Amino acid sequence: MELEQMGKLAKEASRSLITLSKPAKNQCLLTLADNLVQNTDKILTANAKDIEKGEANHMPESLLDRLRLTGERIEGMAEGVRQVAALDDPVGEVLSMKERPNGLLVGKKRVPLGVIGMIYESRPNVTVDAFSLCFKTSNAVILRGGSDSIYSNMALADIIKKSLEENKITPDAVFLLEDTSRETATRMMQLNGYIDVLIPRGGAGLIRSVVQNATVPVIETGTGNCHVYVDAAADVDMAVAIVKNAKLQRLGVCNACESLVIHKDIANQVMPKLLSMLKENGCEVRGDERVQAYSSDVAAATTEDYATEYLDKIISAKMVDSIDEAIAHINANSTGHSETIVTNDYRNAQRFLNEIDSAAVYVNASTRFTDGFEFGFGAEIGISTQKLHARGPMGLEALTTTKYIIYGNGQIRP
Amino acid sequence: MELEQMGKLAKEASRSLITLSKPAKNQCLLTLADNLVQNTDKILTANAKDIEKGEANHMPESLLDRLRLTGERIEGMAEGVRQVAALDDPVGEVLSMKERPNGLLVGKKRVPLGVIGMIYESRPNVTVDAFSLCFKTSNAVILRGGSDSIYSNMALADIIKKSLEENKITPDAVFLLEDTSRETATRMMQLNGYIDVLIPRGGAGLIRSVVQNATVPVIETGTGNCHVYVDAAADVDMAVAIVKNAKLQRLGVCNACESLVIHKDIANQVMPKLLSMLKENGCEVRGDERVQAYSSDVAAATTEDYATEYLDKIISAKMVDSIDEAIAHINANSTGHSETIVTNDYRNAQRFLNEIDSAAVYVNASTRFTDGFEFGFGAEIGISTQKLHARGPMGLEALTTTKYIIYGNGQIRP
Repeated sequence: MELEQMGKLAKEASRSLITLSKPAKNQCLLTLADNLVQNTDKILTANAKDIEKGEANHMPESLLDRLRLTGERIEGMAEGVRQVAALDDPVGEVLSMKERPNGLLVGKKRVPLGVIGMIYESRPNVTVDAFSLCFKTSNAVILRGGSDSIYSNMALADIIKKSLEENKITPDAVFLLEDTSRETATRMMQLNGYIDVLIPRGGAGLIRSVVQNATVPVIETGTGNCHVYVDAAADVDMAVAIVKNAKLQRLGVCNACESLVIHKDIANQVMPKLLSMLKENGCEVRGDERVQAYSSDVAAATTEDYATEYLDKIISAKMVDSIDEAIAHINANSTGHSETIVTNDYRNAQRFLNEIDSAAVYVNASTRFTDGFEFGFGAEIGISTQKLHARGPMGLEALTTTKYIIYGNGQIRP
Repeated sequence: MELEQMGKLAKEASRSLITLSKPAKNQCLLTLADNLVQNTDKILTANAKDIEKGEANHMPESLLDRLRLTGERIEGMAEGVRQVAALDDPVGEVLSMKERPNGLLVGKKRVPLGVIGMIYESRPNVTVDAFSLCFKTSNAVILRGGSDSIYSNMALADIIKKSLEENKITPDAVFLLEDTSRETATRMMQLNGYIDVLIPRGGAGLIRSVVQNATVPVIETGTGNCHVYVDAAADVDMAVAIVKNAKLQRLGVCNACESLVIHKDIANQVMPKLLSMLKENGCEVRGDERVQAYSSDVAAATTEDYATEYLDKIISAKMVDSIDEAIAHINANSTGHSETIVTNDYRNAQRFLNEIDSAAVYVNASTRFTDGFEFGFGAEIGISTQKLHARGPMGLEALTTTKYIIYGNGQIRP
């Protein structure tokens, strides 16, 4: 099917999704969960074709693992869909309604975005996740997954469409691009009038390509060059525990710590402990001269190191003379994702919270908590690192917009 | 000054604006209001150069009028700035704060966007309006006005910078591009990393150019192909009054009605009155065959007519057999700005409010009320017709974003 035709049908479907009741939407999600489990064999057969192709193309084992589905993982997907069905549905809430002096009643109502375009990489579970969150909020969705997982995605999209039909809902509520070429992806990014918002999920290259090429509004997600700042007044053991957790608990995630900032006045107490903990865990450190003075294992950090999201057992480190220098360094180098200060100084904690320009700013906690589930949203479609529309972990509300509804009795403007 | 350098300085300024107190910001706005009035002669001298250039270029009188400043208009600008100073400042409000099971306190705080880029056409008052709204919300702003008003804009920007300095606030909180070339405007639209959001204000061509060329997130404003739908159950006199007001009270505005939709069952009662009212007011009607049957004055409407924002004494008209057809026609042709139904039927009113996909949807009132002041926001930086971030009239809140602030006591992720 032509992309424009898909956009047109998805737009029409989005109009009809608005009229669905909440129980009807939830029932359809429960049908989908059951159908996923019942079609396990079919999904695994399709996934095996993707895995076979990946192995033939010498895909690294870490990527193959993300791509691989099992009975357990399919059960996990279905459970995720059931959880979305159980969430509160934000659509339809009237956030405020006020009477104006002329008697007009002006209300602000939460409504779906319309048609959402998702562009993502090799994890096939995103196909089901994205559909369930978009559908829960009465949005139609056009999915463009990676070519690596095309067979898995086609099988999953087929099960989603059948689940919609079983519930007498238009299957045009979801489309999957079977053509995974770059040209078609670029055309999708410019489908103004049909797609209301694009959400890219994936590595820095994918995100950059969408930001550069899209004319449809984009919610930028993902890249996290997150910092831990160990203040002069830090609890040393807490600092070491937080750095260990933020850097090493999981390496390949956007809320992992990539860069360390240490106040010079606590360096003698904290640096030996920090460096030995990092060394024990096989983590390379790249630092400035004052950090290098604490260990011959520390390589010299370049300007680029301070701006790098390693997603690996590497961390950059910088020593500073003041919290002002720490804040300036972090604001200059971070990607606006998550940063934390370790301190017992009240004023410094407040200054860090106020002056750090990131989606999530912590005092005395690991950056690893930046996550829709950890924040209590019950779902997450991505983590926004831009300032427009949604910032930080995005739950169901991020998939909605508002409109003004105005009740009159013949008012005209004088 | 190089554009990148401006961006860098504006970004730095935005960091320091966050630390300003609310009274300090308001005091600076009051200084600006006084300085505008005190420098009336200087502003008028600069404006005269723009007017002279406009006359030499045979600029139409309507545009010259928008460009022309007078003592009274400058007093009006100053009064606008004083009103902004008096508004509630939304920055800093914590919208919610909840404790998670692990003891983390997760709060959502309203903060400035950072650096806002405004791209606008010939009205010099936008220079002062945009600065005052951005500054009130602790944002730095880069202004790119039209070449037509460059002398006026330079004089105004100079007075703004001096008012900042008098209040010991960095003058880098505002920049005006003196180079008004297209090339520089395009580079401004791609100043990612420095500009957080672009707000274009102007005609459809300007908006389209920004949407097509920007890589920085954009808030699309403006174009309004607004509809009045006269339902079968309409009060006929109310319908005529609302059409008259929405179409004719002011022609060149985005919330004016451009297209009429009439239910066939009320056509015999309403069409003669509507057509004679429009004729009396010199308004041309372009309709389908069923509309044409009511008067030989009605020209045939093309598909394009139904999609056109005339901003003139012309209106398109279409007759429909049902509210379903009316809703489908409006959703297919509107620009998502403002639409109204005239009806006494409860169910049709509810359906229209629910199913019309526009920023402002009315029952029994003129579309002309879509305006930040009419909605009670006390200010307006534009009217968003997109769904991301802000929709409809944008007041101070639209110039803010949120960030998560998280208070911990050593939490790490298990």
